Amino acid sequence: MEVNNTDMQGDPREPDRPAHPGIFPTCEAGKSERKPAVRSVDFPVSVVLPAGGTGERTGLQTPKQFCSFLGRPLISYTIQAFERVSWIQCIVVVVARENVDLMTDIVQRFQHRKVRVVPGGSTRHRSICNGVLALGEGEAEEESPAADGPKVVIIHDAVRPFVEEEFLYKIAAAAKEHGAAGAIRPLVSTVIATTSEGYLDHSLERAKYRASEMPQGFTYDVIYQAYQRCTESDFEFGTECLHLALQYCGTNAKLIQGPPTLWKVTYKRDLAAAESIIKETLSQSACIITGGSAHAATLADGLQKAAGALHMELDVIPDLMGENTGYLLKEWNFIQISVNRCSLSEVEDLLKDLEAANRALLHPPVIIWVHLSASDEPSISGTVAEPAAIMDLASAAKLRNVLLYGIQVHQSKDTERWERSVLKVAEITSALIRERSPALVGQLLQA
Amino acid sequence: MEVNNTDMQGDPREPDRPAHPGIFPTCEAGKSERKPAVRSVDFPVSVVLPAGGTGERTGLQTPKQFCSFLGRPLISYTIQAFERVSWIQCIVVVVARENVDLMTDIVQRFQHRKVRVVPGGSTRHRSICNGVLALGEGEAEEESPAADGPKVVIIHDAVRPFVEEEFLYKIAAAAKEHGAAGAIRPLVSTVIATTSEGYLDHSLERAKYRASEMPQGFTYDVIYQAYQRCTESDFEFGTECLHLALQYCGTNAKLIQGPPTLWKVTYKRDLAAAESIIKETLSQSACIITGGSAHAATLADGLQKAAGALHMELDVIPDLMGENTGYLLKEWNFIQISVNRCSLSEVEDLLKDLEAANRALLHPPVIIWVHLSASDEPSISGTVAEPAAIMDLASAAKLRNVLLYGIQVHQSKDTERWERSVLKVAEITSALIRERSPALVGQLLQA
Repeated sequence: MEVNNTDMQGDPREPDRPAHPGIFPTCEAGKSERKPAVRSVDFPVSVVLPAGGTGERTGLQTPKQFCSFLGRPLISYTIQAFERVSWIQCIVVVVARENVDLMTDIVQRFQHRKVRVVPGGSTRHRSICNGVLALGEGEAEEESPAADGPKVVIIHDAVRPFVEEEFLYKIAAAAKEHGAAGAIRPLVSTVIATTSEGYLDHSLERAKYRASEMPQGFTYDVIYQAYQRCTESDFEFGTECLHLALQYCGTNAKLIQGPPTLWKVTYKRDLAAAESIIKETLSQSACIITGGSAHAATLADGLQKAAGALHMELDVIPDLMGENTGYLLKEWNFIQISVNRCSLSEVEDLLKDLEAANRALLHPPVIIWVHLSASDEPSISGTVAEPAAIMDLASAAKLRNVLLYGIQVHQSKDTERWERSVLKVAEITSALIRERSPALVGQLLQA
Repeated sequence: MEVNNTDMQGDPREPDRPAHPGIFPTCEAGKSERKPAVRSVDFPVSVVLPAGGTGERTGLQTPKQFCSFLGRPLISYTIQAFERVSWIQCIVVVVARENVDLMTDIVQRFQHRKVRVVPGGSTRHRSICNGVLALGEGEAEEESPAADGPKVVIIHDAVRPFVEEEFLYKIAAAAKEHGAAGAIRPLVSTVIATTSEGYLDHSLERAKYRASEMPQGFTYDVIYQAYQRCTESDFEFGTECLHLALQYCGTNAKLIQGPPTLWKVTYKRDLAAAESIIKETLSQSACIITGGSAHAATLADGLQKAAGALHMELDVIPDLMGENTGYLLKEWNFIQISVNRCSLSEVEDLLKDLEAANRALLHPPVIIWVHLSASDEPSISGTVAEPAAIMDLASAAKLRNVLLYGIQVHQSKDTERWERSVLKVAEITSALIRERSPALVGQLLQA
């Protein structure tokens, strides 16, 4: 399964850190084909991440890069996208001076490595330049193999969190070869030139032009020299690093078409789109824990049959012992089935396991506790679970960034009825995992 | 409140149709200031809506314009945006020949007026040209004041559903004055020219260029002549109507900056963004029905206090009689409070009222049934509602496009506890209304 792909090569220098797989596959375009094997580079690469934007275009008070998604700021997702690339050595995040403390807190809270926070300048180019200069200062991270600075610098935007390793490889390799490289995308709209009075002057032939996107890559020398040689006017009004490389170093950047996932979170609607991609990515798989019960296995079997229609991968395991502890380290959600006993002790154990694995640090996992009463009696008595107990446990779990919900289902001897119930469990489970609603934690739903 | 704005001038020619207010205010940029009074034009205006796209860029099998949002295809939302404008006479929807039946079904199912479905050509320009010619055929709708065709033609995209009346007015008026007018937006990315080998040739100075968006407006003569005079190559490879007007009629279009809401649903992420805007727009208000009970009024009062934090307008009414029947005609959701009695009869009545008002035709309203047990005893006994009853009723309501959920709450004499419960009801209500999850209908949640 795609989301587990990069786990295989988890950074050996970080054994104490839960592997965080490449959770942002190509969600765009509905494609989910397997990625090619990820390639590595043999030269030092570092990243400058300008994050000084003020978020004017979203109309929100919080700049976009600090907007929270499932409790974590967007910039942390972007950092994660670079951090998990083994051949990237250092990530310099450039933020407005007033946000340095906030950014430092984010780095600490989400245990980011390889990151340095640097104060920005008054314009985009001044900020990027600060980042480039900081890379050259020789204050390399302990983890860097050498203190001689990067050969290639990748420049990206804090508000493009879905960049993938394979594309970063392409940019880094092309930058090394050609001196500069940049992502492009086809134009979505026709571009037109306007007269000073606000009339159409002419329209550009769409096929000849491209939108310049991020990431871009440069050899350190090219980007460093470009910033040394460019004018105050470039610093003040320019926006395009590729242009500086061309004008001041004579370097024609190699242009590489990127996937639509490179898009920049710009407007308020983009926040919704980003949240949707994040949620979709976290909802691709769930692990059903049967506790070894035959009744539970029957339910698990029915859920697996419905999984295809729900676009979710479901694995069934008896418990989280031995090899199965691996499920704690990946982006799995959990469906814990308890038969007859309305005890939440299995869920309590699961919560402890998740905490021990530091699993909820970056994303809230969902636990669905399914209380299966294997009797033919659908009335509320005897086997009913106590709503207050799961509500209390869910409140405690929420503080630890775990979302716990309950479903109650009766195993009817009537086949048709039972199949309907199983389908209902599947539908509710899927909705809860996808929506991750904090307001509904602790509810005990009826299937 | 903004969403009710245009109701005031509901089209007098359509008295039997539930007024559907301007449900798509400027959601972008977080702004929600009141709109200026909507202006009208004194010349005939019709619309051509090319909807022949194949949806390649979303990677979905269904073309974007036919993708469903809350059970209704995107194109229906776009049609609605034009249909509710009193001064627009006819909307010609141009679809691929194989989709004519599908489109006709959509028009009938959602009771769209003023619409004609026309088969398209093999390219965008051929399709728009078909639409323009259809407008000139004198087959004007019965509702048109005259059969002499439109003075101004507005061309829009089926996949830009959030266009607002005020902006349409600006385009129509400018088209009448200047012969042609088009929406523009600032460029989000730098535009660059590439060499044939895939290297940077030069980058355009961003400030001098704009993205050409939709809608565009033309006098009928200009757009008709442009299509008469243009070449096969224009028909085959061109994309820009403003360009044809300039080249073949010498008409320099007036360019008008539009709001970000004009954006085009292009990629899969845009579907999520569109759904989010639609849901947000439908979640701005709810009407609390107390049944005249003092206990219910106390709860309603508490909910109103929490409403600001939840970004939702809450009105409190005793029932839906008299003037209050107006709530059935607008985009309100409903919170029906039942005290002690766990009877669903009030909800049944509300469902009948909604059906009689044809309220669920275009959007599913949400009903939250709040069962308030006004005792200090929080145990599950006596006053507990029967989960099966609400589940059955919700299943029936869902078939009629109404989403019904339940919340159970105990009115504690302990003030702190009661306030916590009220806040919980508010949070759950807000989550249910915003998420509109079909999988969770009929659930009885605990506050």
